[in-house]
Amino acid sequence: MRFELQAECPLTGSRAGLLHTAHSIIETPVFMPVGTQATVKGLPQRWLEEDLDARILLANTYHLFLRPGHELIRQLGGLHGFMSWPRSILTDSGGFQVFSLSGLRKITEEGVLFHSHLDGDAHLFTPESTVDVQLAFGSDILMALDECPAYPAAFETAGNAMRRTVRWARAAASHFRTRERESEFASSLFPIVQGSMYPDLRAECARELVALDLPGYAVGGLSVGEPRDVSLEVAALTLPLLPREKPRYVMGVGMPEELAQYVARGADMMDCVLPSRNARNGCLFTSTGRVLIKQARYREDPSPLDPVCSCYTCRTFSRAYLRHLFQAGEMLFSTLATLHNLRHYLDTMRQIRQSILIGAFPAYLAKAGSASAL
Amino acid sequence: MRFELQAECPLTGSRAGLLHTAHSIIETPVFMPVGTQATVKGLPQRWLEEDLDARILLANTYHLFLRPGHELIRQLGGLHGFMSWPRSILTDSGGFQVFSLSGLRKITEEGVLFHSHLDGDAHLFTPESTVDVQLAFGSDILMALDECPAYPAAFETAGNAMRRTVRWARAAASHFRTRERESEFASSLFPIVQGSMYPDLRAECARELVALDLPGYAVGGLSVGEPRDVSLEVAALTLPLLPREKPRYVMGVGMPEELAQYVARGADMMDCVLPSRNARNGCLFTSTGRVLIKQARYREDPSPLDPVCSCYTCRTFSRAYLRHLFQAGEMLFSTLATLHNLRHYLDTMRQIRQSILIGAFPAYLAKAGSASAL
Repeated sequence: MRFELQAECPLTGSRAGLLHTAHSIIETPVFMPVGTQATVKGLPQRWLEEDLDARILLANTYHLFLRPGHELIRQLGGLHGFMSWPRSILTDSGGFQVFSLSGLRKITEEGVLFHSHLDGDAHLFTPESTVDVQLAFGSDILMALDECPAYPAAFETAGNAMRRTVRWARAAASHFRTRERESEFASSLFPIVQGSMYPDLRAECARELVALDLPGYAVGGLSVGEPRDVSLEVAALTLPLLPREKPRYVMGVGMPEELAQYVARGADMMDCVLPSRNARNGCLFTSTGRVLIKQARYREDPSPLDPVCSCYTCRTFSRAYLRHLFQAGEMLFSTLATLHNLRHYLDTMRQIRQSILIGAFPAYLAKAGSASAL
Repeated sequence: MRFELQAECPLTGSRAGLLHTAHSIIETPVFMPVGTQATVKGLPQRWLEEDLDARILLANTYHLFLRPGHELIRQLGGLHGFMSWPRSILTDSGGFQVFSLSGLRKITEEGVLFHSHLDGDAHLFTPESTVDVQLAFGSDILMALDECPAYPAAFETAGNAMRRTVRWARAAASHFRTRERESEFASSLFPIVQGSMYPDLRAECARELVALDLPGYAVGGLSVGEPRDVSLEVAALTLPLLPREKPRYVMGVGMPEELAQYVARGADMMDCVLPSRNARNGCLFTSTGRVLIKQARYREDPSPLDPVCSCYTCRTFSRAYLRHLFQAGEMLFSTLATLHNLRHYLDTMRQIRQSILIGAFPAYLAKAGSASAL
């Protein structure tokens, strides 16, 4: 993997770059659609490629480890072969999902013991085993196992989780280095900065992880229940502590109007289930604000969802038809809505990137800020 | 509408033709995908056009009358505009759905009084009103309201229903003739031959309806619970009673291996929810028989669903991946499976049509018959 910085904004922390992996060249900043179970819910792979020109997807280690299992996926050509996705894939470490299981898991220095939400079977995730699972997936970018405390976390709890995250990252990195040779293509391991909402803990974590000299870094522990301005603040103080010449990934954010905010603070990569989940629930993001499609005002509305969007949904169907599909519980609604919401996110990121490349990001940010009340 | 007979098989009743409507040229024999609520469940319209090359869809008057309503659809450009489908549309009369409501409806000479399954509201379908509703839809082919008795029906019950169907067809035809001038484009009304499984009643019904000199004829009252060989037998004795120079539509059949059987008896048009409904339930039709995708034998199967099928699903994904999507309850399964099953039906019909055009249908039929044990 190689990260090529193309432009940096002199007034903000934003940067534009190219992330070269074995499977694609990713233009950054980038928003990664989430394909939890080796599918972006409702979206055919060729739409991700042809309609969205997505260069990288995120898939979830926890879900795919349980079903269909990493050995099956390895046997069928890794995730790329299994799901017929030729471009890049990033997998999380499973930590975030496992820590969300609360009652069902137990953390020790060795790793996390948890019970499957599918059949109750016990499994152990260790820093080493989650590397092995992700290598079986053939991921381009692997995430190191981290401990992600809930919000709010006491300083001591957050500190302990952060220090364990650092020890696990060291173990993961060391294991990854012995195993990566066996891989068919070059992949990269990113560790995750934790520390809850405490600046000192974030700084300590960043310092320890940077010392590992890994090819990219993530900011985790956000979107765990804290107010949105706190997430942004924590990202703002953590991102500058990560190496300038390496990609920085802020995990699990955010709303469309927040994308530029994170980029302004130095984020190169982001992911979130919001665009796809909201789409399925009938909440659509447009250039003039949110559309809750079930509202009666759209019943006879012949206009496209977003007149300035050029996705298939907006080019082809009226709000009235989309509302009908939603009200009738038709599957096609989810497909068309997900396509649009992801297009909105990806187009937003492309606009942000363009503005950075031409030196106009501060103006973009000002405009986006004034529009974010929408 | 104009029906052009291109070839007739000298040994069977099969024919190949072109049905010219205001919105497309339909190659017959044709299988029409069912788009009940103005969407073929799970399939984007552009796939119906580009991947399947479907020339005509069926939509259901009962469902669309209740939601979103025919006046709304008229206002939004008819069904073609509303659902963005530029090719032909056939709508049923609503009779079949209303008669399936059993406890919720009451039949009089005037029409059928029924209660909506959505909100319990009372509505009346008359031969005239269902023509008006379908004209509001802008359907290319409208079906006349019929009375479809359940199976088995006593001779007297079946006779009464058949005679009412004839009277309603006369009323519908007369009403249609006064209203069709107001239409923006040429549409056609087809009446439906009833008579349950009684040859005499079918013959009487056919004779009376043929006297109305309408542009096409349907055989209804099949797939109401009778054995499959009985459906075929009733179609076999009814189809030859319908005008040679007009299209003949057998409603609601059948299994893939039955398509050629119906064509051999003179059917030009067919529709059925089987390919799409079975797809969603994980039952896939292939050139070598049915695949029940949930079976453990497909767990590690890297081969395409049907190696001789060139649909997107078969070109792109393995049985193992499709099984994973099905087991994980992922929406994409339904989309990919429906695409394949409909492609299988449409390709089967295209093969049948080719064999008729080149004079090889009897050989095709013999081969299909020997393969139908699959």
